[in-house]
Amino acid sequence: MYSVGRIFMFRIPQGNELLDYLNRFADTEGISMAWVNAIGSLEDVELAYYDRESGKYIVKKYPGTYELVAGTGNISLRDNKPFTHMHVVIGDRENKAYAGHLVKANVYVAEVFIVEITGEPKLVREHVGGGLWLWKTTPKH
Amino acid sequence: MYSVGRIFMFRIPQGNELLDYLNRFADTEGISMAWVNAIGSLEDVELAYYDRESGKYIVKKYPGTYELVAGTGNISLRDNKPFTHMHVVIGDRENKAYAGHLVKANVYVAEVFIVEITGEPKLVREHVGGGLWLWKTTPKH
Amino acid sequence: MYSVGRIFMFRIPQGNELLDYLNRFADTEGISMAWVNAIGSLEDVELAYYDRESGKYIVKKYPGTYELVAGTGNISLRDNKPFTHMHVVIGDRENKAYAGHLVKANVYVAEVFIVEITGEPKLVREHVGGGLWLWKTTPKH
Repeated sequence: MYSVGRIFMFRIPQGNELLDYLNRFADTEGISMAWVNAIGSLEDVELAYYDRESGKYIVKKYPGTYELVAGTGNISLRDNKPFTHMHVVIGDRENKAYAGHLVKANVYVAEVFIVEITGEPKLVREHVGGGLWLWKTTPKH
Repeated sequence: MYSVGRIFMFRIPQGNELLDYLNRFADTEGISMAWVNAIGSLEDVELAYYDRESGKYIVKKYPGTYELVAGTGNISLRDNKPFTHMHVVIGDRENKAYAGHLVKANVYVAEVFIVEITGEPKLVREHVGGGLWLWKTTPKH
Repeated sequence: MYSVGRIFMFRIPQGNELLDYLNRFADTEGISMAWVNAIGSLEDVELAYYDRESGKYIVKKYPGTYELVAGTGNISLRDNKPFTHMHVVIGDRENKAYAGHLVKANVYVAEVFIVEITGEPKLVREHVGGGLWLWKTTPKH
């Protein structure tokens, strides 16, 4: 059980890679756990689907500019550094939707909302095989 | 007008049905109102569209594994128990997006963020006809 | 850096235009900054894609009823009044997803979650050319 810490709401400057920016932001601000939402417009997006059979992410590239319609993710610790895990729905100029695990994207406009979460234990990503780095579950429910 | 209560951020153990797990979690923790966000990967998803003419949900099944790209929902009271209402966007291995009311899905990976909401009056779902169970509105705005 | 203020969770009465309702709600309640999530069902939706070359939003109309699957947005100040910026993913009766910047939509059912954000400086939208009204960035990260 955790509590709400600081709230950050801001626009990421154009040209930054979204995940890299959020990771650096969290590192600078000392954020080790957070929930993240984002909307805006992204360029040259790479989305992935996790293929359980091969244990690998299948990555597809989307060149050009897409609306960032629903960015949902979190920040937790991986290798002792804040790590952003985000899934996004993007829309093209016909409003056609593409949905997946965000690998990378350049920011044209990104309005983000970060809810810092405080308390113990810290959520830590551990490599569980294949491409997956997961939090321990506490299956008491 | 409400306030933020406890914050829960965790991974649901693999194999649970998502809504059933969240309902049991809320019941055990004594959560009567909350907002919920989730990302991850789901198996054997059932999505629905509410058909106003027939007053019924049209359900479609999606066998296999899909990215859970945007899970958005809430917890409130229905028949005196916490009830999770969630809509999801899922993505297939081509990042094609499907969007609807979540009927059920098995968890492969689900990272959830629950914001408990405290205060009065409690939000209660009441049967308003057809398949709809809605909160009372307070149309003062 | 901001803090959490009041929390609002409610259903918007049927027949209201979604953005207009949220703007009036924020104005009445004195909300100048907030994050917003919404799910439900919308009628006669208009979605847009921002075309950078022309500096204009390309708008498409979706007559009929769609599931509101992921509504993500924020409230900040524009022309000294609270202004709601929202992106939505909607789903049709086949769960086909459409994603874009929300121009307008009539509410059939809308369950909204508003997190008021308090602190300084207030986020203000300024016209930066074309159809874009953006917050200043503070590119210190």
